[in-house]
Amino acid sequence: MNLIQRLKWRYATKKMIAAKAVPQDKVERILEAARLAPTSSGLQPYDIIAITNPQVREKIKPVAWGQGQITDGSHLLVFAAWDDYTPERINTMFDLTNAERGTKNPAWEDYRQMLLKSYPPRGSDVNFQHAARQAYIGLGFALVAAAVEEVDSTPMEGFDGDAVDEILGLRSRGLRSVVLLPLGYREIDADWLVHLKKVRRPRSALITDIP
Amino acid sequence: MNLIQRLKWRYATKKMIAAKAVPQDKVERILEAARLAPTSSGLQPYDIIAITNPQVREKIKPVAWGQGQITDGSHLLVFAAWDDYTPERINTMFDLTNAERGTKNPAWEDYRQMLLKSYPPRGSDVNFQHAARQAYIGLGFALVAAAVEEVDSTPMEGFDGDAVDEILGLRSRGLRSVVLLPLGYREIDADWLVHLKKVRRPRSALITDIP
Repeated sequence: MNLIQRLKWRYATKKMIAAKAVPQDKVERILEAARLAPTSSGLQPYDIIAITNPQVREKIKPVAWGQGQITDGSHLLVFAAWDDYTPERINTMFDLTNAERGTKNPAWEDYRQMLLKSYPPRGSDVNFQHAARQAYIGLGFALVAAAVEEVDSTPMEGFDGDAVDEILGLRSRGLRSVVLLPLGYREIDADWLVHLKKVRRPRSALITDIP
Repeated sequence: MNLIQRLKWRYATKKMIAAKAVPQDKVERILEAARLAPTSSGLQPYDIIAITNPQVREKIKPVAWGQGQITDGSHLLVFAAWDDYTPERINTMFDLTNAERGTKNPAWEDYRQMLLKSYPPRGSDVNFQHAARQAYIGLGFALVAAAVEEVDSTPMEGFDGDAVDEILGLRSRGLRSVVLLPLGYREIDADWLVHLKKVRRPRSALITDIP
């Protein structure tokens, strides 16, 4: 497996085959990659909603510019960031870490106290923006994993976040949808983008070397 | 190559071997993965500063809590997001796409006009936050690629962004540093984290299935 080749193969699929479902074992590896993604202080400040239910996806499609991949694909992943860092959420993650490692480290506990003192007072706007960035690391991991699994995917920001939150009942769980990722298979004969060249800024325009 | 195994191998390395440089071909594949990362509307609203220069890294270390990986690693990648979406930046990317594809598509030109009308007026705060999220997709791709290359890396948000921007002259280029990624090799005998269990929320706590 050559990672760069897989990343060149992937693209934001515009038309997916409605009748071809992604095998669940592939979806599980994509989700596992996202689960393993690192996040700031290890807090993992987002949830992933994995929707196969066709009725729920039919409800989301019209609030996402009618994009067909939402229902033509077999799975829709919704990345939903925490709306705030609360003491409960911070403590839950530190407690889980202590439980899993079977240790209670003084430096780690000092770090917990520092986060408890600094994060909640920053306010939910700052905290949500910070959490959303972490969700995009998870999105990146899922995108790479999908390409490695030869599964097509289309990251989407074009949707009404409030409407998706309402459909999925996210706000009452302290979550806000930030990005969608349908999974499926490209329908080569019906996808206007599939034969067009992938365009990226050249290395010389994107990267500044300081030798 | 089993991607999940590679992702379990990686961790936020706390101590890197000062004398062991990452071969440049590996760094190039990590940068190429980041270059290939998708971004909203394909705008790639960030730059990557790839620093090997020891003096520059020595200057950055004290404004990043003195974290040793910045100088013990052989490369420091700085992800710097656009401070705003300007018409010039939007047009540059659309023009590049047209030039690379050798086509000028009416729907694509309509989409350009829509972005030109909607993005710049949103203001630089909204636009910078949006650009920063895209940079985190690139960070995700670089993190996965580093793991695949068996290169250690440590994503860092703990630094004074204004100070790093000043050291690297980023503001005059319309850029703001958002996350650092030193690359190097773990020093197993001196890293307090290397032997501790990687902790993530279990699938059942992170992922909600809607079947």
